Amino acid sequence: MAAALVENGDAVAGVKSPAPATGRVASVYSEVQASRIDHALTLPSVLRNPFKIVDGPPSSAAGNPGEIAKLFPNLFGQPSAVVVPSESDSNESQQKLKIGVVLSGGQAPGGHNVISGIFDYLQERVKGSTMYGFRGGPAGIMKCKYVELTPEFIYPYRNQGGFDMICSGRDKIETPEQFKQAEETAVKLDLDGLVVIGGDDSNTNACLLAENFRGKNLKTRVIGCPKTIDGDLKSKEVPTSFGFDTACKIYAEMIGNVMIDARSTGKYYHFVRLMGRAASHITLECALQTHPNITIIGEEASSIVTWCKPAFDYCLEGKKEKCETLVSPLPGDRVALKKLTLKNVTDYIVDIISKRAKLGYNYGVILIPEGLIDFIPEVQQLIAELNEILAHEVVDEDGLWKRKLTDQSLQLFEFLPQAIQEQLMLERDPHGNVQVAKIETEKMLIQMVETELEKRKQAGAYRGEFKGQSHFFGYEGRCGLPTNFDSTYCYALGYAAGALLHSGKTGLISSVGNLAAPVEEWTVGGTALTSLMDVERRHGKFKPVIKKAMVELEGAPFKKFASLRDEWALKNRYISPGPIQFVGPSSNAVNHTLLLELGAQV
Amino acid sequence: MAAALVENGDAVAGVKSPAPATGRVASVYSEVQASRIDHALTLPSVLRNPFKIVDGPPSSAAGNPGEIAKLFPNLFGQPSAVVVPSESDSNESQQKLKIGVVLSGGQAPGGHNVISGIFDYLQERVKGSTMYGFRGGPAGIMKCKYVELTPEFIYPYRNQGGFDMICSGRDKIETPEQFKQAEETAVKLDLDGLVVIGGDDSNTNACLLAENFRGKNLKTRVIGCPKTIDGDLKSKEVPTSFGFDTACKIYAEMIGNVMIDARSTGKYYHFVRLMGRAASHITLECALQTHPNITIIGEEASSIVTWCKPAFDYCLEGKKEKCETLVSPLPGDRVALKKLTLKNVTDYIVDIISKRAKLGYNYGVILIPEGLIDFIPEVQQLIAELNEILAHEVVDEDGLWKRKLTDQSLQLFEFLPQAIQEQLMLERDPHGNVQVAKIETEKMLIQMVETELEKRKQAGAYRGEFKGQSHFFGYEGRCGLPTNFDSTYCYALGYAAGALLHSGKTGLISSVGNLAAPVEEWTVGGTALTSLMDVERRHGKFKPVIKKAMVELEGAPFKKFASLRDEWALKNRYISPGPIQFVGPSSNAVNHTLLLELGAQV
Repeated sequence: MAAALVENGDAVAGVKSPAPATGRVASVYSEVQASRIDHALTLPSVLRNPFKIVDGPPSSAAGNPGEIAKLFPNLFGQPSAVVVPSESDSNESQQKLKIGVVLSGGQAPGGHNVISGIFDYLQERVKGSTMYGFRGGPAGIMKCKYVELTPEFIYPYRNQGGFDMICSGRDKIETPEQFKQAEETAVKLDLDGLVVIGGDDSNTNACLLAENFRGKNLKTRVIGCPKTIDGDLKSKEVPTSFGFDTACKIYAEMIGNVMIDARSTGKYYHFVRLMGRAASHITLECALQTHPNITIIGEEASSIVTWCKPAFDYCLEGKKEKCETLVSPLPGDRVALKKLTLKNVTDYIVDIISKRAKLGYNYGVILIPEGLIDFIPEVQQLIAELNEILAHEVVDEDGLWKRKLTDQSLQLFEFLPQAIQEQLMLERDPHGNVQVAKIETEKMLIQMVETELEKRKQAGAYRGEFKGQSHFFGYEGRCGLPTNFDSTYCYALGYAAGALLHSGKTGLISSVGNLAAPVEEWTVGGTALTSLMDVERRHGKFKPVIKKAMVELEGAPFKKFASLRDEWALKNRYISPGPIQFVGPSSNAVNHTLLLELGAQV
Repeated sequence: MAAALVENGDAVAGVKSPAPATGRVASVYSEVQASRIDHALTLPSVLRNPFKIVDGPPSSAAGNPGEIAKLFPNLFGQPSAVVVPSESDSNESQQKLKIGVVLSGGQAPGGHNVISGIFDYLQERVKGSTMYGFRGGPAGIMKCKYVELTPEFIYPYRNQGGFDMICSGRDKIETPEQFKQAEETAVKLDLDGLVVIGGDDSNTNACLLAENFRGKNLKTRVIGCPKTIDGDLKSKEVPTSFGFDTACKIYAEMIGNVMIDARSTGKYYHFVRLMGRAASHITLECALQTHPNITIIGEEASSIVTWCKPAFDYCLEGKKEKCETLVSPLPGDRVALKKLTLKNVTDYIVDIISKRAKLGYNYGVILIPEGLIDFIPEVQQLIAELNEILAHEVVDEDGLWKRKLTDQSLQLFEFLPQAIQEQLMLERDPHGNVQVAKIETEKMLIQMVETELEKRKQAGAYRGEFKGQSHFFGYEGRCGLPTNFDSTYCYALGYAAGALLHSGKTGLISSVGNLAAPVEEWTVGGTALTSLMDVERRHGKFKPVIKKAMVELEGAPFKKFASLRDEWALKNRYISPGPIQFVGPSSNAVNHTLLLELGAQV
């Protein structure tokens, strides 16, 4: 805990940058930070010995291969690559390389290790190479803002959280001018390769960049790396995105603590909102780690499930009416979930709270994904109508304007707590639109649950006491010290990216697999980014996208959760994972989602 | 991380209780929880070998000894006790004991270990003794609700967080009827002793109970134990309250993560509110662990400091005007801090943000104690006036009611963001009073800072970009797995409490000292609770109180902080403590506050 204070050197190499570039100095580290620097990183065996890279069969696309082929004429169909043992290194060429790296989008624990992995590959296998870190995300490429990465500069960042070694940014390289700027930088720095560390959008962008460079006959190759704590960039070949493991464990630590608090005081319902605007993987993983009483998974909003009773009311497929009598559909019964409404969610929570009250439990823990509201179709509809009305109509105090709302939206609007109504009417973004993202879903739900419970109390159907306590666990999970898993996984991703670039590959995403096995046995390769793509129509044009991986209601993680949630609801099965440990047996645990998806846990 | 699910047995012994008594089962533990159960607890050498208990000199009181003597005729003046090595145990008497234990007030990590310590003392030194855990706090004593504690019941709670073994409560034993109920329980269970684990109020209560039992010639003796994450129950003999170490480390982990996030994105000011309504020890300790850019310490609100430049504007003692020219008072200059106002706090924050913007930093981390508002005299004044007005006047829409406010209060009211104004006017407690506790100070400050920065921007004095992000770290720190320090400290406190009761002591608080030394060398004893007391006049009567230990502006922790905060403000000295480790060198670190107060750190 003792930490001497020394001057933080401004570690700027390469180019003078207007923003301050403050490199880290290990001597201002906490003991835990310092102990992590020298934590030994194991590489998969295949990367530790001589290897060669072999191509698989030609690839296609995740959807609409015809359109993808048109969008990526130079890259479409290229095979994925696999690193395999070899008598001698296939990359005998010792021509020095110049490689750039960029961090794109939100932080995820482990990003620094990807950079270390690339760097160490170059140090060990292509001596004399140069590595540049583009500063502040893709804007750094366009503006040619970079630092030259040296062993001294990189060293203190090993196994450390954050993206501050070179910082990140959310700019995109999209317009022809921006592609031109990227080309200029590639030429100016004589880049042999570029590694883009980012999420689904950034990897789509990486592929467009690869296509563009190839089309222009530039030598610069582009390799992507899968990053996002949200866990929604994954596929068969890319089993997980880095950062998810650490972030979930940080949130689960806090949730576990709050659970024991709830049980100790016996008087609070803790409503915990968790990061994850698009997909609910974080919420699901945290539920598997901690066993909360109630967990809302956004993806249940409008899905057909065939395997078990969903949480919310449902009806037999094809029939429109509610089938409240169908309490226990048989396995294989085809059951269609009605579109989720806020009222459904509220009722689901209130039902469980009422049942718990009868058992003597007036406390509990409820997990909610950040993106819940975005999942609910009726909310989207209301927002759209409000945007329209607010843009064109006078909002009178007597509420006559509400007549412009459709029946369904009016009903929903009236159902919302007054504070949320006011927030929707008053807080707009610069374009005059309602700001859904600013709604604190957990607080909104507390108010709605409170109102509903009060009604039931009046009706004599509920006799408990309800006190809601809200939490948002978000930023504190993005920059924690990476777990041993994320540290090792990222290092392998980076090392592999170096190998792929060295062998002349472009348009691939670094892929490390067989992750349930010991690190030595992990597989290594690169997956054609075009093979992960589909198209979306935007403004009349086809745009390539790597589709976000949502929580699969037929997938093993959700199924396990769904099979246990009724038990967790009424009995208290709380598990407190405790703080992440870096030493000892628990330090090498891997998240449930990954193990379940790999079939390594049941 | 794998954790089998088994039925949670309802572990009820002694008496049937209406609330569900769900004992823990180790088989539903996470790996980290499970690994902690068998973590070996070291006792101070003096407790491991034969010992005797010797009395010190007669004690007095912290203030008004005459009044304390009148309030505690049977206990006042009794000596503190020290445990010293002996040829043979002085407590040779092997008469079985019946001992009760109660947890009182908010949770603090380590409470279960205090109970384990008492229990193990009895198991090892007074075989055949019985131990009862009163359920749900002091109410459990009054209603005689208890469980008999057995080795099987206690075992899974060793080194575990929370208070759920017997739960806690906030009731007080105050009225003659309540004292009578407590007596009845003591007699009914034939109690030889009672250990009260609690904060300042609960230990005051413990002493009153001890006095009452002694006065009634009951054999039941009462020993207190110092508990509170807030760290505000301490004295020379009681160097720290348990739970503070763990809670601060949990908060510091999160703050460290948020700091790296701030540095990585470069665009947010994170306003972090931390628990601690009365004193700012937690905020100060977290600052020492993490080095935030700005830290507000509530105790600076209205104090005279003699040693260094305070954060806010100040004037030479005796002079009323602002002395802005006195930039660097010499050490020893007597400088009087003006009463702190919200405007001061806002200006202080805005000044630093402006300076940082000039250096290119548009991000930072700001720590705020939960109790900040309570520290600011003008806020208290405004609340008092509002309560008066709201009780008696019509609040008209035109705001004529505001004329009833004094000038100062009106000025403050107008200075507050509109949302806060509305909150003050609308949200009342059942007595119709304004609810200060519900104000989210961190959000209020963000709004005030935003407004002030906008003004400066208009005036050309600020050119940065400001985005505030609010956090409240509270409940997640109260029930974490206790650190090695808290685990060991609590076990010693409990073991000592057992020894004190066994030797016939009453009205003492278990005291373990020399905490900067290895555990073997810790000192053990009991401090006369009356010696920690002063009186307060309430409703015309003298009431005994153990005064809360506030952050001493002349104390080593604050002085160290104050000597560094200017540097932390403009240079980024962030330290990320990382998650609490239970194994390895960092696992035995002790918090800075304690080490500085003991002179073991500079």
